[in-house]
Amino acid sequence: MATWVLTARAALAADTVAAVTPPAAPARSMTEILAASPPSAWRPLNDDHTLYMQLPGGRVVIELAPALAPRTVANIEALVRLHYFDGLWVLRVQDNYVAQWGDPDGVRKVPDTMQKLAPEFSVPLGAAAFTLLPDRDGYAPQVGFVDSFAAARDPGTGMAWLTHCYGAVGVGRDNDPASGNGSELYAVIGNAPRHLDRNVTIVGQVRQGIELLSTLPRGTAELGFYDKPPQRVPITTIQLASEMPPAQRSRLEVLRSDSPTFTAVVAARRNRHDDWYLQPAGYIALCNVPLPVRAMPATTP
Amino acid sequence: MATWVLTARAALAADTVAAVTPPAAPARSMTEILAASPPSAWRPLNDDHTLYMQLPGGRVVIELAPALAPRTVANIEALVRLHYFDGLWVLRVQDNYVAQWGDPDGVRKVPDTMQKLAPEFSVPLGAAAFTLLPDRDGYAPQVGFVDSFAAARDPGTGMAWLTHCYGAVGVGRDNDPASGNGSELYAVIGNAPRHLDRNVTIVGQVRQGIELLSTLPRGTAELGFYDKPPQRVPITTIQLASEMPPAQRSRLEVLRSDSPTFTAVVAARRNRHDDWYLQPAGYIALCNVPLPVRAMPATTP
Repeated sequence: MATWVLTARAALAADTVAAVTPPAAPARSMTEILAASPPSAWRPLNDDHTLYMQLPGGRVVIELAPALAPRTVANIEALVRLHYFDGLWVLRVQDNYVAQWGDPDGVRKVPDTMQKLAPEFSVPLGAAAFTLLPDRDGYAPQVGFVDSFAAARDPGTGMAWLTHCYGAVGVGRDNDPASGNGSELYAVIGNAPRHLDRNVTIVGQVRQGIELLSTLPRGTAELGFYDKPPQRVPITTIQLASEMPPAQRSRLEVLRSDSPTFTAVVAARRNRHDDWYLQPAGYIALCNVPLPVRAMPATTP
Repeated sequence: MATWVLTARAALAADTVAAVTPPAAPARSMTEILAASPPSAWRPLNDDHTLYMQLPGGRVVIELAPALAPRTVANIEALVRLHYFDGLWVLRVQDNYVAQWGDPDGVRKVPDTMQKLAPEFSVPLGAAAFTLLPDRDGYAPQVGFVDSFAAARDPGTGMAWLTHCYGAVGVGRDNDPASGNGSELYAVIGNAPRHLDRNVTIVGQVRQGIELLSTLPRGTAELGFYDKPPQRVPITTIQLASEMPPAQRSRLEVLRSDSPTFTAVVAARRNRHDDWYLQPAGYIALCNVPLPVRAMPATTP
């Protein structure tokens, strides 16, 4: 009965079939909004601050956010230039939480000058750089986006911080806040653990390939650590995109969070008006806002 | 350098090291609170309304919630008794969204009388049955728990509904709301897609084994459907726990959401005061509240 495939596809097409709010206008899906977007609504990933993590399954593309964690991003990039991560491991995968990588056997040396680093749980940021999401949030006074990274802000202090949404990349640390030097990293692979916000320095966002981490076997030791070394997942290399030959780079662009197209996408997802949805939510949580990524058009130089 | 393992473990132990709020009292972790809990804080899963889905990787245990979807749960249980799902497939896995199972090739017949079913997007529920979570929510007037299921409620109408948190199990449907008869089901494997609330009938919650679904390869066709039949994941059987010999049942119990222990757990997770956390959140989102499940003590009859 082909109808059951239809049932499945129709029910779940719901997620991509969305519409902007005005009931008079024809409903536009997110796909349609993106298809009609001008080139100016997109920006290429910044290759100077983008990491490629090579796993057995393929490449994970992580864009770093130096504006929100300048010292920590610089430390990580310095470690990458030292080939610190090459040959290390994904050592922990906890279901509905994080995948984490680093040096479980202590085979690598972090240079003495890079061992300790003052954390960057939040940073001063001008209001102009922050695209406000009007929907209220339980964890922060304001939420929104900075250069296509999900973030929060305290307008009273002018401080901003990246938030633990799906695919966010953060810095593992010990009880000492200065112990988070960037040599141990994790990515969020489950429901947003926003309680970690401002307790960890977040440094960026997986822009492509998160499924290479989210499908890894869960560790069975406490907290999802792999309890036997053969279970670890080898990292061939972590490299800066800008150090790769252009032909080997992932030519990706992300929707600009300060573009009208982005505002239209958010509105379409906040209230869905297609034939499937009967109850538009009238609200969207920060970590449910999509950050569309696509291959750069072939004509772009 | 063993210190890096320590770094990893310390940073991430943070998730299980939590404390109740009063600063005068010694901080108790969730683990400690649970270890000190009385037997009355727990209830066994209801075997009359619990499904075992047997996948190649093991058993997924789904507890149904007849109080919140009586007709749909009855339909699903009737299909299970007809062995409807045995030999069918997980046919779609979309990253950060859902894993879905059913009959992609239409090899099964749903009895005519069970084809259409009025949806149960919300149901009348007495206020007494609802354990309120005081933290505000963006998607619903009130959120909380009904018999250890995450739920929402409109006090103005007295209607309640189950919510799309991680591990929630819902009913796929076509545009016709009555097309959701329970023969096509999905489980949430990503950040809570709360916009689906009240657009789909949710029927229960995965109590054990969600990682057997969340680690499945993502489908590469549109919406995460497997584009080739060999990619599908076979379902050996879906059976009711109560129809299994007692020795073959998963003897599990869930923390009662109307117990003082549960209230203490939620408080400990809302504000974490151990040595690792520097910034307690002061808030907890509905879908970040844990619903602890454990093996029944051996002494329980």
